[in-house]
Amino acid sequence: MPIYNAPTKDMQFILHDMLNVAASDIPGYADLDRDFTGAILDEAGKIAGQVLAPLNPVGDSQGCVLENGVVRTPDGFKAAFDEVREGGWTGLDMPEEFGGQNMPYIMGITITEMFSAANMAFAMYQGLTHGAASAILVHGSDQQKATYLPKMVSCEWTGTMNLTEPHCGTDLGLMRTRAEPQDDGSFRISGQKIFISAGEHDMADNIVHLVLAKIPGGPEGIKGVSLFIVPKFIVNEDGSLGARNGVSCGKIEEKMGIHGNSTCVMNYDGATGWLLGEEHKGMRAMFTMMNEARIGVGVQGLAQADAAYQNAVAYAHDRLQGRDVTGDKNPDGPADPLIVHPDIRRSLMDQKSFIEGARAFTLWGAQLIDRAHRGKDDEADNMISLLTPVLKGFQTDLGFQMTIQAQQVYGGHGYIEETGMSQFARDARIAMIYEGANGVQALDLVGRKLGLNGGKTVMAFFNLVKDFIKQNEANEALKKGYLDPLKAASKDLQAAGMYFMAEAMKNPNNALAGSNDFMHLFGHVCLGLMWAEMAKASYSALDAGTSDTEFYQSKLATGRYYMARHLPATAMHLARIRSGAEPVMALEAARF
Amino acid sequence: MPIYNAPTKDMQFILHDMLNVAASDIPGYADLDRDFTGAILDEAGKIAGQVLAPLNPVGDSQGCVLENGVVRTPDGFKAAFDEVREGGWTGLDMPEEFGGQNMPYIMGITITEMFSAANMAFAMYQGLTHGAASAILVHGSDQQKATYLPKMVSCEWTGTMNLTEPHCGTDLGLMRTRAEPQDDGSFRISGQKIFISAGEHDMADNIVHLVLAKIPGGPEGIKGVSLFIVPKFIVNEDGSLGARNGVSCGKIEEKMGIHGNSTCVMNYDGATGWLLGEEHKGMRAMFTMMNEARIGVGVQGLAQADAAYQNAVAYAHDRLQGRDVTGDKNPDGPADPLIVHPDIRRSLMDQKSFIEGARAFTLWGAQLIDRAHRGKDDEADNMISLLTPVLKGFQTDLGFQMTIQAQQVYGGHGYIEETGMSQFARDARIAMIYEGANGVQALDLVGRKLGLNGGKTVMAFFNLVKDFIKQNEANEALKKGYLDPLKAASKDLQAAGMYFMAEAMKNPNNALAGSNDFMHLFGHVCLGLMWAEMAKASYSALDAGTSDTEFYQSKLATGRYYMARHLPATAMHLARIRSGAEPVMALEAARF
Repeated sequence: MPIYNAPTKDMQFILHDMLNVAASDIPGYADLDRDFTGAILDEAGKIAGQVLAPLNPVGDSQGCVLENGVVRTPDGFKAAFDEVREGGWTGLDMPEEFGGQNMPYIMGITITEMFSAANMAFAMYQGLTHGAASAILVHGSDQQKATYLPKMVSCEWTGTMNLTEPHCGTDLGLMRTRAEPQDDGSFRISGQKIFISAGEHDMADNIVHLVLAKIPGGPEGIKGVSLFIVPKFIVNEDGSLGARNGVSCGKIEEKMGIHGNSTCVMNYDGATGWLLGEEHKGMRAMFTMMNEARIGVGVQGLAQADAAYQNAVAYAHDRLQGRDVTGDKNPDGPADPLIVHPDIRRSLMDQKSFIEGARAFTLWGAQLIDRAHRGKDDEADNMISLLTPVLKGFQTDLGFQMTIQAQQVYGGHGYIEETGMSQFARDARIAMIYEGANGVQALDLVGRKLGLNGGKTVMAFFNLVKDFIKQNEANEALKKGYLDPLKAASKDLQAAGMYFMAEAMKNPNNALAGSNDFMHLFGHVCLGLMWAEMAKASYSALDAGTSDTEFYQSKLATGRYYMARHLPATAMHLARIRSGAEPVMALEAARF
Repeated sequence: MPIYNAPTKDMQFILHDMLNVAASDIPGYADLDRDFTGAILDEAGKIAGQVLAPLNPVGDSQGCVLENGVVRTPDGFKAAFDEVREGGWTGLDMPEEFGGQNMPYIMGITITEMFSAANMAFAMYQGLTHGAASAILVHGSDQQKATYLPKMVSCEWTGTMNLTEPHCGTDLGLMRTRAEPQDDGSFRISGQKIFISAGEHDMADNIVHLVLAKIPGGPEGIKGVSLFIVPKFIVNEDGSLGARNGVSCGKIEEKMGIHGNSTCVMNYDGATGWLLGEEHKGMRAMFTMMNEARIGVGVQGLAQADAAYQNAVAYAHDRLQGRDVTGDKNPDGPADPLIVHPDIRRSLMDQKSFIEGARAFTLWGAQLIDRAHRGKDDEADNMISLLTPVLKGFQTDLGFQMTIQAQQVYGGHGYIEETGMSQFARDARIAMIYEGANGVQALDLVGRKLGLNGGKTVMAFFNLVKDFIKQNEANEALKKGYLDPLKAASKDLQAAGMYFMAEAMKNPNNALAGSNDFMHLFGHVCLGLMWAEMAKASYSALDAGTSDTEFYQSKLATGRYYMARHLPATAMHLARIRSGAEPVMALEAARF
């Protein structure tokens, strides 16, 4: 059975040593002292490790079963969901008025990481509910909020997002689902939605579907899309559940992974729905929560990588195979443990340095969201808009790669389902696809976010890196091991940006053909910046005479690895970008 | 249902335009004229596309079932195996005296690619039999050859390789399986072997297990390992089948992929076996066929990438989503096909340029094997020994990555098992692991093959690249687009080799920590060389006034892409290598 130990110590390091959250002026952050966050992380970690992780292989092997319109979730899921609900974990960062605990988003995201790492398919039921509740919170009428939010914050009712149709995913303007206005102000929703995670299941009394549909006579394409609330059971005025609505699960998809989550084909047959937000402004309502949803997916990449990594480490300590060429490490045993071998070490360091860097990036991103929303800070809002496609795309691409590397440490045993290593990879794979496939993230980054605010936001990012380097380069150790490589990587990123500006004028494809490389280049610079900041924090702790020197020295070593072994990718991405559209587009479509 | 079209035209291009096989002095090559090879490839392609490919998803969804000691293969596998046998495809490159057709290995490997691409799990039954037959061919007594080979060449009997035990994979010296000598010259084999592909099934009358075991009293460790023939049914002197031997399948493993192949736990309970080759020289007997077996696995990486790529191309033409930013390509439709988008194009070009380069590399490698074995050429033997870990490790790593990219083209639909894109990735994954995990390939390359023949072999490789560049740089177009990038990449490879020589003296881990990067660097230089040779062949054909200008111009464009977009990886690998062992080994084992 795979293990999972919540990385509470590392999270505490990022929250306090690096981000110094308790000293922040963001509303709500003053409460986040080390003891407080530590207590929350410890408790959440217990649920993750003891309740959710043991159910992860169960969910994978049993999957969800549709019988007579009812979806049965895997054994133990319902009881675990009750435990999560009862612990108050579902409304951590939701407003108190609806039963939440009103903590900052940064605390919510730490829990998301733990729960996703322990059991991604399970955590999605809660995650989608959170997303749907956020949409109602921002765009709903007072009555809608009162009707749905208390039950959704507690996860007595769960939520879904209905965007995709069989013929349209990214290009939602092609949507066919219709919403016919009724005399009572409601709408009759008809159409088919696919890939609806948690679309139907047996763990909640009601399911609140948020459905994108077109009101006849509205604008063509994406501008004519509206968002509707379509509950599985109509909610009576007194809050009790009324009639079954005209929505049903037609099929559960057979997927590569996340078997414990029911991915449904949902049929809307004249179902009753209510407009959420304004007519034809459905995409805007969706986009409001897009940054959060995408960061949530970026976290899944990191989370699966960490779960897989922890098991790879355990196996590398345990499995005896071959000898250390520099001298036996286990002379009394028949062989040395795998971890003595440099190539195993290389793989584990790849994983560790990515995971810890990505965790810091994620929490910094979450802090920007808190600053934007709680602190009403537009610059922070722009910055997180810029970084969101990087967080989502880069972290899920690398996260998946790291699950593959972790699986590889097991040799043949990694290919056998019994060890659980295959599941981490298969589950992590979806994060590269949903919530906007990573190619779309790259397009968003290059096509929209680079030009955000007239390019001022990306300039602000460059300045942030530059200023950090300038302010800290008096520290010789920091400069040589961390700041110099970061400076070189950042130069590559700026050069790529310059290339796009100059060459996209001639042909927009010169930028688009490099979008994927740019997203990865950007991701490495972000993680390089995180490692520089973490190194600074580690030196500070060591200088201050911390008793836990091992922890901080490990941080420094891990960061040095990132700089030496991950960051050289930036020059490669730049070279690819600079080759432009010609090699990419030279072959006619018919010649593939 | 996924499609598969055998790449006969591309194989013909490599065999004739690039390698000019019919003009080779290798014994048997004179027969390989364009019509002859074309006829074989066409026929094999039909079997692959029409018989094997349709069974691929069947094998994946049904898997193999063990009931009362009998393993049931998926529906249709037995009939297809009969068809393959009847077509004579199993003994193509085996000696005529045992019923084979005595064709060069290079022809065998083209068929291996096609069958593996169409149905990897199925092709393994045949592939393992080929490997076991090769071992008997080289090391067996005349009687053993006469007893087993005719039936194995025809695949009436299949074969297996039994190396791994629960506690030992790579480190076979830890093996526990015992072989007790009997008075009649046979041995009683007792022990457990795991991960035995095609270990038990219902498609052959007998199964010939080749089993590594230790004879009591022999040398310790790997030097005391011998190889045995252990048939499922004892073969009587008249060739008929006798008693059931003491070998049985204890379990079929649940795996991530290749479900159509039965991966068995094999229990040997005093089974009767006969020594193959010399006592305690079992590893030597195994290694004889290692180059071929590893190239066969390298082909699987390329084959799965091609199968996945072909489907991704079809989907990219078919699926309408979004618009070409440079102008609508399908103005009468609701959207343009995916293939207009530069990032989709980038992904498909990544795949195509890898696949075609790897195919050329594979066939060049097969030609080296033919030159070594048929032409008794020691230099060719050394060269293919050097290149084998690259062919296996690099091609399966990249091959898997490409199946992931192909799957990504499908968006959410790629994650649904129905489209078959998940299977390509799940099946391809094993090729990175078995027949020596890729970390072991990298270790073999750096630890053994670099020093082969006192370093003369790797120098011969560098000279081969240098000479090719020198001989062809008068061609300006070839020089700029292909030779210059190849020269730069080759310089990176040599610099890495120099680094190893200088730094491994101080600490062997300086080389071992860079082994994986070195294998990838080497792979890119090999594919760069292949593309330069293919570009030269294409220019020649165009200069000679070929009527098929589109084909050759597509080759040139695809090669240009490889040079511009894949080759920049070499500098990154070099930078990683040069950072040495320090960042890799700095963290103590206990701190992971």
